[in-house]
Amino acid sequence: QFRAEFLDLHPYDQASIFEHMEEDDRLLVYSYLSPEETSEVMEHIDIDEIEPYFTEMDPRFASQVFAEMSTDDAVDILNELDKNKVASFLTIMDDEDASEIKDLLHYEEKTAGSIMTTEFVVVKANQTVREAMQHLRKEAPDAETIYYTYVIDEEKRLVGVISLRDLIIAEEDWMISEVMSERLVSVAVGEDQEEIARMMRDYDFLALPVVDFQGHLLGIITVDDIMDVMEEEASDDYSKLAGVSDVEKPDDNAFTSAKKRLPWLIILLFLGSLTASLIGRFEDTLDVVPVLAIFIPLIAGMAGNTGTQALAVAVRGIATGEIEKQGKKRIVLREGLTGLITGISCGIIISGIVYFWKGDFFLGMLVGLSIACTLIVATLAGSLVPLVMDRFKIDPAVASGPFITTINDIISILIYFGMATAFMNLLI
Amino acid sequence: QFRAEFLDLHPYDQASIFEHMEEDDRLLVYSYLSPEETSEVMEHIDIDEIEPYFTEMDPRFASQVFAEMSTDDAVDILNELDKNKVASFLTIMDDEDASEIKDLLHYEEKTAGSIMTTEFVVVKANQTVREAMQHLRKEAPDAETIYYTYVIDEEKRLVGVISLRDLIIAEEDWMISEVMSERLVSVAVGEDQEEIARMMRDYDFLALPVVDFQGHLLGIITVDDIMDVMEEEASDDYSKLAGVSDVEKPDDNAFTSAKKRLPWLIILLFLGSLTASLIGRFEDTLDVVPVLAIFIPLIAGMAGNTGTQALAVAVRGIATGEIEKQGKKRIVLREGLTGLITGISCGIIISGIVYFWKGDFFLGMLVGLSIACTLIVATLAGSLVPLVMDRFKIDPAVASGPFITTINDIISILIYFGMATAFMNLLI
Ligand SMILES: [Mg+2]
Ligand SMILES: [Mg+2]
Ligand SMILES: [Mg+2]
Ligand SMILES: [Mg+2]
Ligand SMILES: [Mg+2]
Ligand SMILES: [Mg+2]
Ligand SMILES: [Mg+2]
Ligand SMILES: [Mg+2]
Ligand SMILES: [Mg+2]
Ligand SMILES: [Mg+2]
Ligand SMILES: [Mg+2]
Ligand SMILES: [Mg+2]
Ligand SMILES: [Mg+2]
Repeated sequence: QFRAEFLDLHPYDQASIFEHMEEDDRLLVYSYLSPEETSEVMEHIDIDEIEPYFTEMDPRFASQVFAEMSTDDAVDILNELDKNKVASFLTIMDDEDASEIKDLLHYEEKTAGSIMTTEFVVVKANQTVREAMQHLRKEAPDAETIYYTYVIDEEKRLVGVISLRDLIIAEEDWMISEVMSERLVSVAVGEDQEEIARMMRDYDFLALPVVDFQGHLLGIITVDDIMDVMEEEASDDYSKLAGVSDVEKPDDNAFTSAKKRLPWLIILLFLGSLTASLIGRFEDTLDVVPVLAIFIPLIAGMAGNTGTQALAVAVRGIATGEIEKQGKKRIVLREGLTGLITGISCGIIISGIVYFWKGDFFLGMLVGLSIACTLIVATLAGSLVPLVMDRFKIDPAVASGPFITTINDIISILIYFGMATAFMNLLI
Repeated sequence: QFRAEFLDLHPYDQASIFEHMEEDDRLLVYSYLSPEETSEVMEHIDIDEIEPYFTEMDPRFASQVFAEMSTDDAVDILNELDKNKVASFLTIMDDEDASEIKDLLHYEEKTAGSIMTTEFVVVKANQTVREAMQHLRKEAPDAETIYYTYVIDEEKRLVGVISLRDLIIAEEDWMISEVMSERLVSVAVGEDQEEIARMMRDYDFLALPVVDFQGHLLGIITVDDIMDVMEEEASDDYSKLAGVSDVEKPDDNAFTSAKKRLPWLIILLFLGSLTASLIGRFEDTLDVVPVLAIFIPLIAGMAGNTGTQALAVAVRGIATGEIEKQGKKRIVLREGLTGLITGISCGIIISGIVYFWKGDFFLGMLVGLSIACTLIVATLAGSLVPLVMDRFKIDPAVASGPFITTINDIISILIYFGMATAFMNLLI
């Protein structure tokens, strides 16, 4: 009864219900479902919450579940578990399944190898369409996708690909070599997952073959996993822009959160102390014209904001490859001009505000000019930092808003107090 | 010669080459390729750059290209063109194609209707698998995907779905009603594209059917278009966090860029003036203890940074639905505690630095305490703002870093000068 109703749901919905169950009920679920049915539930559970489930399962059952799972998902989960437990699961498993999983466990995180699966379908170029279809029907229940079939030669090198769409419209006695496409797009096993996501999105594929440096087919990467990669990479960039070193989970506790945020905060604290000591050098100016202090946060704040804007535009542009296309020089020039326009606009507005508020023409001019110069420099800094990082092969996404903000605080203070000191006689 | 080599490439690569051609060469391409071949190139060109190509084409050829294109892509492009031009293309087109496109042009941007295509394959429940396969072979060249076939009843209501995987392993004389799945996941035509992307990612589908409120099948959304949606939404959130109102393109000129950044900057300028007038109210305190000015950017900066961190974590958590799961109260409590830990840590460090630098114990205590309080309040503010916005059904992603930074500037100045004024006798 329960079994029938539960299995009638999509595995994602099964997983959602399962995650809300108490341990006793979960143990019942394991006893009602087959290892294969359980594997589908597990494939849709959030990877960070999966550990307790495999700990409470009977180890023999658990290793059967792993054997039934797509190898890529099995490997993802095993990577979350304790090394000893992994070894014991692999020992119980039959040799073939265990060795496939062991191979995948070796690939570095966030590379093609770590997200590929080994359940792909291959045929030979000298087979007929009929033979290929028969093979496909046999493989269908276990394969990750049957919508692309890969063609390999005697040495297991990838030589072609054929979609099921082309296969079903082909005549049954045609040769695979006649219908396959040799227009192959494949990725190297060490390729970065972000680059793979970009390719999948550009070429609109449902799967991409993964090859070693000699062109041997090692696995395939499917589009459902690439959607997860895209989400992960987007979260990652978003967090970095805000200066959170590692992606935080809402179920982290306060200590974990604090640990992830503190490194940046402490660096920024020291940079901030530098800003303080810089202002300290202008104490004489401040003593003579104490009203200058009032505009410090305004000027530093505007520098930070405009810098963050320029930063975000540059980082996105690098990520999408658009900046490469446009040329870095053009972008810097464009940013300089943008800084000039926004700087002059904001400068005029603020000098008006200050003049009407304080009734001091020269103070208004000073603040306006400082804002104008600050915005120009801060905009340039915001776009130059990621471009330079990219040049030195550092992921520009690690340049965070808080970092650029603090750098721009320093620049803006120097400009503001530098000008004030130079024109001090006008301000007294 | 050129034709054969060009067509040997993937349409994405064809488009990349095409975009780098001069007008004369492009005109040759149109003459070498059929409307269908041209449509595939156009489907892979960046939507913002496509207008001139359709303007330089012969109008009759252009309307044939639109007719051959997937309806969703045709509509996307037509939405970028001048209304008069669209009308004239539709007039030349044959009636059936034109009316399908006209229907799609009416849907609101970023909804299911605006990203769906009408080239889907349907069968009836009382057909056999053999009949369905024959139908599929016939439809294959034009359909957007043949990997899912949708089953409709007499009133065109969606009643089931069958994957090609299930179809090819089924016996030929089985009825569709026996092999189809009634476990339907569909989306309403007005559904937000971001929500659709989340569903596609959770359920690992290659396509989702779109229905009206009576369950009639109107179109399908395919995974390749969802990857574009994910990229677009990620860029959008990223830009908003940095306070860039609209997503900027690297090929925008400086004036367009400035126009997109200025609205935020001007709002922030006024907020900054508010900060300045706040400090103005503490001028007496500043006159007596001018050294206070030195630490303004440090304190305001730390408030901004920590607020942005909390903001980013909250916005991501709302977007992924994780915060819903954990409960908002728990999150606010967690953030309060995180603020306490980071606040006390940073407070101790900075009071040490200030004490050793200035040799003033009370000044050190004041700065340290201010940082501690500021970080607690700023962290809470950073997480509360998006939660409150979400409560009032405002997309929390529009809460930008610069906005939260400036709010926190104000809070931090109040805390710092408030404390300094209260304990002034200790500081003189
Ligand atoms: Mg999966
Ligand atoms: Mg993996
Ligand atoms: Mg990366
Ligand atoms: Mg695409
Ligand atoms: Mg997978
Ligand atoms: Mg990245
Ligand atoms: Mg397309
Ligand atoms: Mg559209
Ligand atoms: Mg939205
Ligand atoms: Mg998924
Ligand atoms: Mg499409
Ligand atoms: Mg969003
Ligand atoms: Mg700031």
